[in-house]
Amino acid sequence: MKVYMDNNATTMVAPEVVEAMVPFFSEVYGNPNSLHKFGTATRPALSHAIDQVYKAINASDNDDIVFTSCATESNNWVLKSVWVDKILNGDKNHIVTTEVEHPSVLSTCKFLEEQGVKVTYLPVNSEGIVEPHTVKSFITDKTALVSVMWANNETGMIFPIKEIGEICKSKGVLFHTDGVQAVGKIPVDVQDVHVDFMSMSAHKFHGPKGIGALYIKDSQALTPLLTGGEHMGGRRSGTLNVPYIVGMGKAAEMATENIEEKMKAIRAKRDRLEDALLTLSDTFTVGQREHRTPNTILISIRGVEGEGMLWDLNRFGIGASTGSACASEHLEANTVMLAIGADHELAHTGIRISLSRYTTDEEVDYVINHFKEAVARLRAISSSYAKVKPTPGGEAGECHIPEHLT
Amino acid sequence: MKVYMDNNATTMVAPEVVEAMVPFFSEVYGNPNSLHKFGTATRPALSHAIDQVYKAINASDNDDIVFTSCATESNNWVLKSVWVDKILNGDKNHIVTTEVEHPSVLSTCKFLEEQGVKVTYLPVNSEGIVEPHTVKSFITDKTALVSVMWANNETGMIFPIKEIGEICKSKGVLFHTDGVQAVGKIPVDVQDVHVDFMSMSAHKFHGPKGIGALYIKDSQALTPLLTGGEHMGGRRSGTLNVPYIVGMGKAAEMATENIEEKMKAIRAKRDRLEDALLTLSDTFTVGQREHRTPNTILISIRGVEGEGMLWDLNRFGIGASTGSACASEHLEANTVMLAIGADHELAHTGIRISLSRYTTDEEVDYVINHFKEAVARLRAISSSYAKVKPTPGGEAGECHIPEHLT
Repeated sequence: MKVYMDNNATTMVAPEVVEAMVPFFSEVYGNPNSLHKFGTATRPALSHAIDQVYKAINASDNDDIVFTSCATESNNWVLKSVWVDKILNGDKNHIVTTEVEHPSVLSTCKFLEEQGVKVTYLPVNSEGIVEPHTVKSFITDKTALVSVMWANNETGMIFPIKEIGEICKSKGVLFHTDGVQAVGKIPVDVQDVHVDFMSMSAHKFHGPKGIGALYIKDSQALTPLLTGGEHMGGRRSGTLNVPYIVGMGKAAEMATENIEEKMKAIRAKRDRLEDALLTLSDTFTVGQREHRTPNTILISIRGVEGEGMLWDLNRFGIGASTGSACASEHLEANTVMLAIGADHELAHTGIRISLSRYTTDEEVDYVINHFKEAVARLRAISSSYAKVKPTPGGEAGECHIPEHLT
Repeated sequence: MKVYMDNNATTMVAPEVVEAMVPFFSEVYGNPNSLHKFGTATRPALSHAIDQVYKAINASDNDDIVFTSCATESNNWVLKSVWVDKILNGDKNHIVTTEVEHPSVLSTCKFLEEQGVKVTYLPVNSEGIVEPHTVKSFITDKTALVSVMWANNETGMIFPIKEIGEICKSKGVLFHTDGVQAVGKIPVDVQDVHVDFMSMSAHKFHGPKGIGALYIKDSQALTPLLTGGEHMGGRRSGTLNVPYIVGMGKAAEMATENIEEKMKAIRAKRDRLEDALLTLSDTFTVGQREHRTPNTILISIRGVEGEGMLWDLNRFGIGASTGSACASEHLEANTVMLAIGADHELAHTGIRISLSRYTTDEEVDYVINHFKEAVARLRAISSSYAKVKPTPGGEAGECHIPEHLT
């Protein structure tokens, strides 16, 4: 049996999405910028896809949604163009972000620091989220941008974006959110929440890899990252990736229609899985589940290295993760657990399990069984676990990181 | 009948390419950076695709080929990162390019000028190419980069890249070439020609839109444009677009294997079409055909506005162009014809016809017939053509722009 439980890394493209895309490879293949029928034939499908993405996040007619090649591009675009517009060619010099952003934000901030930009990396609380008052206390009159993710990729924890947005608005500071782990998983309404820019990625909600978007409130100015032809109103050059735009539209529609029902179904499976895993002694999950995206569990199993666990699960066809796939080539400690305050040994025990709307009850049962067996196998050979006397009755629970474990 | 003659704008994705890509949407859909089987299952196909692209341009093992989302990204990457590396953080301040580059190079140069970079736009000769001695004469000790296209998108004219590469090498200046219109159309051998960086685009050779690459000689340093996770050795972040990388590899292989034979077949059709069109009076094509990519014709028909001609052909199902699709939303004069020295009226008479290996003899015949009829129709209502006494015997020919017409 093969069970995919790594949907925060990427997802299977929905068959309906593939079906929608395929005609645009070899049948309707014109360049949308061309004036002849081969080009214009692509336009109704593009318009429809754009409408689908607008609807998925409740954007208004005044807003822009610009397709990019991925959320990494969207994140780079916002950070680097704010640097050009407000710092190189303005009087600001400061960007505020968090310690637990995706590598595409953190690495870009490191690059900007090398160019002389001052960056504040906000700490998170024991739940792994940044608190609004923390954001407020670090904004200065030199701050050009605040960039805080909507939901965390490793824990699924949902950040208080509405409150942070209000703070940025009242301070007159631009606000960007990496919405990659939120869109398609929880309701996202950009008219209810104040965000100037929001990054999205299709492959996190059963669209293809290699297409993303940037939401731009009120079509406000932002220097393009990719300059060139007048594609997308001159905001992002490069021949339009027609099949993937069509696919992203379809995937966004499928993921967000009746989202409350979908969330309920996924949450039920997630909670059942989580409850079963927490019956194991000396385990805990990071962040209260009501505050997480409904598909995500980050579980720590004392005495079991995440990588060993991952390999054992992999033997049985289960795909899980120790954290961001974008950093997984180096077997590093889970960065969110470190940010919360775990020591390196503990931060190496994190296993992320992320479900999708395609996850079945049978798959959940399979994971529960194999997970328990794997933990038993690995603890039996764990030198670190043997040294620690297991707490009677275990430490299972859903909580912030217990002090005696850090 | 529908006849697509705009293959320099984009191409139909080859059915074999679609077939190669499709399994990577919903079957082998893991993130290549993931450590489990779902992720590692993608890797053999990725390796194979990379090998195919290496082979297509005869890159060596010391080189890097980094996949990007399009050639616009590749071009932006080189220009903007050379700006960061050699100008913002170095002692250079000058970039050399040409007047006839693709908008993704020209617009990026305009952006760099706004940031204080000095840019020289080299003129072209009457054939529409930049001459090596011109490049040489503008390089100074402040020049960070020379960027000259391998083949022009509008005329198909092939530039003396080997000679320009040698000049840059001897001067110690980085050399970038936009190889978009060369790769897959003519032999491209990066071990025979000295180029530090070369941009490529899959959708110009029957691969999908939304994937390109940058060739980097000897894996030399170049600050990433997209910073983030450690994808592609940290050179270009963003989850790998597995289906399109596989598709680009397959398309590159198909386009470049036995390329001499393919060129011969396309050239025969192109030449037959060109000869037939040049029997019309007062027409000429830009650039000697032996020095062009074998699929391209840029023809000027005196007294006939390109846009009118395009619409007339479009009525009969023929897709052609007045120039770069990337600039076609604005009905501008053909920029290459302007650069050669045509006045605006003449530069509005250019029609670009670009064939592919899928073009049939039947399609060529169809275009010849309708083209001639369209010219007759449009000349009959042309006020500008009526004013000019047609030259006896016509001015048909393949030549630089005649002085009396400019």
